[in-house]
Amino acid sequence: MELTHIEHLGIAVKSLEEAIPYYEQMLGLKCYSIEEVKDQKVKTAFFKIGQTKLELLESTDPEGTIAKFIEKRGEGVHHVAFATPSVKTCLTELEGKGVKLIDKEPRKGAEGLNIAFLHPKSTHGVLTEICEDPNKQ
Amino acid sequence: MELTHIEHLGIAVKSLEEAIPYYEQMLGLKCYSIEEVKDQKVKTAFFKIGQTKLELLESTDPEGTIAKFIEKRGEGVHHVAFATPSVKTCLTELEGKGVKLIDKEPRKGAEGLNIAFLHPKSTHGVLTEICEDPNKQ
Repeated sequence: MELTHIEHLGIAVKSLEEAIPYYEQMLGLKCYSIEEVKDQKVKTAFFKIGQTKLELLESTDPEGTIAKFIEKRGEGVHHVAFATPSVKTCLTELEGKGVKLIDKEPRKGAEGLNIAFLHPKSTHGVLTEICEDPNKQ
Repeated sequence: MELTHIEHLGIAVKSLEEAIPYYEQMLGLKCYSIEEVKDQKVKTAFFKIGQTKLELLESTDPEGTIAKFIEKRGEGVHHVAFATPSVKTCLTELEGKGVKLIDKEPRKGAEGLNIAFLHPKSTHGVLTEICEDPNKQ
């Protein structure tokens, strides 16, 4: 199991329009990309700090995962994504060790990464994503 | 405002004894330190991944902040800590911009860092810590 760094933090926000100025003007970070991920029903805004991206997530659908997360818990950190050279290898290993998976196979996420989510029941409450950058292979 | 990387993620867990084996055996990370921070009523366990530490937090007091967080929201990411060369400079700048602060002056945190917390009401739901390593100055 090789995890190299935290690739990104997914942060649920009610409104990108309100949250982006906070990250830019208060924390001094720069939003370098806004992207809609239709199958996840979100609009995302990306910032970079050191090795890690912050991925702000605004729901585009009141029934979407992010809308429901905010309804239940308010805005905040939604998931933690670890970088790995191979999502497939990790999934095989984790499943063998009894970790519950949301995605049994890698799928495409924002920025063209191959991603998979583990189930928070297996991860002490942290919704955990693993991802690989196919352009770095 | 100079934030260089994510110094650590604070993760609230019910029991270090149960959570440490998950991070070690499932994610392949190594716990390099266990430390009690008495004034925060927590026992902490540290892991390193890339530039970032994971700081697992177990409450030592049923009335402590972490115990109350878990009671309300379950286990999960409690705070995000950004590294900066100067906490004092950041606090002055943030206060001037109207960000609500929990700590108006830097104080000592785990691992001897100088730290301060911003208020989640000002930070779109993410409890945010800024910290500097006085040994790196």
